[in-house]
Amino acid sequence: MKIYETRSAPNPRRVRMFLAEKNIEMEYVQLDLQKGENLSAEMRAKNPLGKVPVLELDDGTCIAESDAICTYFENIQPDPPLMGVDAKDKAVVAMWQRQVELALMMQVGLCFQHTTGYFKDRMVPVAEFGEEAGINASKYLNILEHRLETHPYLAGERFTIADITALCAIDFARVVKIRLQDKHKNLHNWYERISARDSASA
Amino acid sequence: MKIYETRSAPNPRRVRMFLAEKNIEMEYVQLDLQKGENLSAEMRAKNPLGKVPVLELDDGTCIAESDAICTYFENIQPDPPLMGVDAKDKAVVAMWQRQVELALMMQVGLCFQHTTGYFKDRMVPVAEFGEEAGINASKYLNILEHRLETHPYLAGERFTIADITALCAIDFARVVKIRLQDKHKNLHNWYERISARDSASA
Repeated sequence: MKIYETRSAPNPRRVRMFLAEKNIEMEYVQLDLQKGENLSAEMRAKNPLGKVPVLELDDGTCIAESDAICTYFENIQPDPPLMGVDAKDKAVVAMWQRQVELALMMQVGLCFQHTTGYFKDRMVPVAEFGEEAGINASKYLNILEHRLETHPYLAGERFTIADITALCAIDFARVVKIRLQDKHKNLHNWYERISARDSASA
Repeated sequence: MKIYETRSAPNPRRVRMFLAEKNIEMEYVQLDLQKGENLSAEMRAKNPLGKVPVLELDDGTCIAESDAICTYFENIQPDPPLMGVDAKDKAVVAMWQRQVELALMMQVGLCFQHTTGYFKDRMVPVAEFGEEAGINASKYLNILEHRLETHPYLAGERFTIADITALCAIDFARVVKIRLQDKHKNLHNWYERISARDSASA
């Protein structure tokens, strides 16, 4: 079993942190995104969308998408639970995980790609749209701040995959100069707690 | 238990179809998206992102995001399984579900919003970006066509939530004039089979 990834990219960090929380060792194969090593015919056969990370199982099955890779490990090693413990809790975790992905991580990524032209060899950057994505990401921090007024973690009383995704997104957001603001007191407190976990440096 | 939704919107259809496959009856509350009924203070309290569908449980817990709502019902009523049957299968389903969401449904939605200005009272449409999103969606149909050369359903041998998402996305794509092409022979065959299920009219 191995994972193809790029150490400096935000989504692979989500999976490394998830595995560190479960104390699962993994073999990692590094790909250079800027050189397009993720877009080779060999990697396209593993993941048609050409993105990282990709988990390759010993039988050759490839699983792309950070959330899908984590789903695999949550099921083969449920302890500690990071994706919920019963039907309602699993749904609440899935909701926060997805909203953090779509309204924060993805918006930051779109802002980065469209305002910097980092991948302009493989997509058409539209700066106006990138700036809008950055504004969307900033606004979503206010929703997280509100949530953390009444809950210690994003999905409730327990640390989950949604906290991992949010931490990785907030750290990634520095590349487009989006940072927590002074008004984000609960989010600052949460950020310090999550950043202090051993898994945060995985 | 009830679901707030908009009957004509593509994401609520995904949940209705999922529930129909599981033969679960549901109370639906209709919201007019164009009038912004989904953005009222009452609905924002249920889902801060102001989107539909939203499942409200009898204890007041609200679950937004189509995939999270389906996760809830998959766990309370596993039969028939629509999100995989073991760790590897669940991960494969989660991967296809997510890639169809991101590379097809979301691209069609962005194309629609950015080229038509349908929600221009609440976002800044950027036509150039919308057109790029439409091209992305069209290209992804070729990936689905290739997948269906060797598998009867997107996630493999069994009908799953990924097929539901793809059907709803392909039907929605008509609004931006993206349609299956003659070269998509396997996708056409799959589309006929999935459209013929009773749940497709839910």
